[in-house]
Amino acid sequence: MKVVVDAMGGDFAPREVVKGAVAAVKEYGTKVILVGDEQQVRRELESCGASTVKNIEIVHAEQQVEMDDSPTQILRSKRNSSIHTGLRLVKQGEGAAFFSAGNTGAVMACAKMILKTLPGIDRPAIAAVMPTIKGTTVMCDVGANVDCKVENYIQFAIMASAYSSIVMEKESPTVGLMSVGEEDVKGSDITKAVFKFLQELGNSDVINFHGNVEGKDLFRGTSDVVVVDGFSGNVALKVSESAGWYVSQMLKDEIRSSFLSKIGAIFMIPALKRIKKKADHSEYGGAPLLGVNGVCIIGHGSANSTAVKYSVKMAHDLAEKRLNDLIEQKIVESLEVLKVDKDDSFWNNIVEKFKRKTI
Amino acid sequence: MKVVVDAMGGDFAPREVVKGAVAAVKEYGTKVILVGDEQQVRRELESCGASTVKNIEIVHAEQQVEMDDSPTQILRSKRNSSIHTGLRLVKQGEGAAFFSAGNTGAVMACAKMILKTLPGIDRPAIAAVMPTIKGTTVMCDVGANVDCKVENYIQFAIMASAYSSIVMEKESPTVGLMSVGEEDVKGSDITKAVFKFLQELGNSDVINFHGNVEGKDLFRGTSDVVVVDGFSGNVALKVSESAGWYVSQMLKDEIRSSFLSKIGAIFMIPALKRIKKKADHSEYGGAPLLGVNGVCIIGHGSANSTAVKYSVKMAHDLAEKRLNDLIEQKIVESLEVLKVDKDDSFWNNIVEKFKRKTI
Repeated sequence: MKVVVDAMGGDFAPREVVKGAVAAVKEYGTKVILVGDEQQVRRELESCGASTVKNIEIVHAEQQVEMDDSPTQILRSKRNSSIHTGLRLVKQGEGAAFFSAGNTGAVMACAKMILKTLPGIDRPAIAAVMPTIKGTTVMCDVGANVDCKVENYIQFAIMASAYSSIVMEKESPTVGLMSVGEEDVKGSDITKAVFKFLQELGNSDVINFHGNVEGKDLFRGTSDVVVVDGFSGNVALKVSESAGWYVSQMLKDEIRSSFLSKIGAIFMIPALKRIKKKADHSEYGGAPLLGVNGVCIIGHGSANSTAVKYSVKMAHDLAEKRLNDLIEQKIVESLEVLKVDKDDSFWNNIVEKFKRKTI
Repeated sequence: MKVVVDAMGGDFAPREVVKGAVAAVKEYGTKVILVGDEQQVRRELESCGASTVKNIEIVHAEQQVEMDDSPTQILRSKRNSSIHTGLRLVKQGEGAAFFSAGNTGAVMACAKMILKTLPGIDRPAIAAVMPTIKGTTVMCDVGANVDCKVENYIQFAIMASAYSSIVMEKESPTVGLMSVGEEDVKGSDITKAVFKFLQELGNSDVINFHGNVEGKDLFRGTSDVVVVDGFSGNVALKVSESAGWYVSQMLKDEIRSSFLSKIGAIFMIPALKRIKKKADHSEYGGAPLLGVNGVCIIGHGSANSTAVKYSVKMAHDLAEKRLNDLIEQKIVESLEVLKVDKDDSFWNNIVEKFKRKTI
């Protein structure tokens, strides 16, 4: 079982990517295929003293995807990029999972085109693992789908719930629906519609539906999974990252500005380091693109070697634990539950569409 | 110029509200009318030694709005509540502005019904003043409108920009549109449409349009104003508050868990207090409900006397500085700019609707 790594993707590629992949090989015994410019990749392997390490293959890719290339451009004219080549290796069964910290739009578009989606899934979605006061919460979608329909939310709930139970090892994870208030009646027109479907799935134990959650519940860990459209989810994710940055900037300014604080900070260095580690996204690896027929992990553009190492491990684990099998099974179960027997044209319409895509 | 204060609204009413109102009278010389249960209000005034303080009137209101009353219930059957009575005082010109930390939905619904909206404004919106690394940013809407149309966003931009220039005293405040990426082409179907209208208004100096911003720009203070639908804005606001809470919880845990950290924390107490003060929402007073024909400030349910004091001052300043005059003027200017001369039915449709409401 090999993890295919896009050696050319990310702000610090190929250096940090190669370093992180090598660390995963050494630390976890993962087998990797590095895809990218062969010469550059070899040079990086040498510079971290890993040219003779076993379990590392290199596959050459001529083209390179830039951060500002548009997904359509890449789909059409960069078929020999490391992203295309790497995903093809997974499609052909050479690799079990793919990781890239490159252009997110490009990875999503190529993964959807090359790997295709699972039966019953219209659109893949990105799940982010967020640190909370109780542990972690999986938020999905965080940016793959900015305009969502009811059926997309249902699919996000099923996929993220499966992810939480298999990867975060939570038994019967609770699923919250992001809204503007906890009460059942709160929400936008679409989240109110989604609520009813999730409630139905919850009543039948396809998922463990908790009800509405709010922005403030994210760090409280009120639910194991938070289902949200890709627009609000993206805003929530980036606001979270930014809030952490803001607090640390204020802390730095305050420490600099007074002698007493400087002394205090020296005593607190270990504590502050532990907090940073807890809140740091690189410790949580990349974000899985759920719903594609294969395993695909998307890294933060600024991923360092630690983040790459964790992401490669994550990619391997996802493939090994057969997450997609569980998603497929849950989709079938949900179809059984959401039978068209209601006198509600909206409901019937959604379920019919859902059925057509699944069968 | 008197500020009407809902003495019964908020988790700590009437005590903290009365205390805060008294503080505003003493500190800023504001004149206030306290609306609520006369006996209870008198008792609170006595207990903070303010029964003989000048510039405090009491108006009795029989009914009380509970936090879980629905807005429709309140509109119909609680016409003698402190919210209704207080807003009527503003409508009749007895008071210049209204403040309540009570049930937000009720305050919004009553304000819209009693004060009505300004010409050209479909729906009032809540603006929140967010602390940033550069100072403050005004985010609008943060929850009044969870389902927004293009014309709502345009109105939010004009109202929040006027608010920023008058209240935050920013000359030509920059207006950012919340999206999922900085590039012009990024966004949902609706934000992409809004982008074009804001760009047009920006080209004509009705507003100073900065372009798209992302969640991570909020605390960076990239723009003075952030325009967003009430759903994502509410999520962003609550995630921000929650992130601050999360960091402070982690800090407390770390300080408790090690002797060295405890010593360090003692030295850092003043610095940590300054950070708390900077990030604390109570220091920024309440959130204005922009777009109603009158001044209405909504406080946080958990508002303490400090938050109430700032909110009363804010209410007074908004009335004195004639914010609504500027909003009306900008709406007229924007109509001039968004002339229907384009070969675009969507555009024409929005502008026509906008025009009908304004003239």
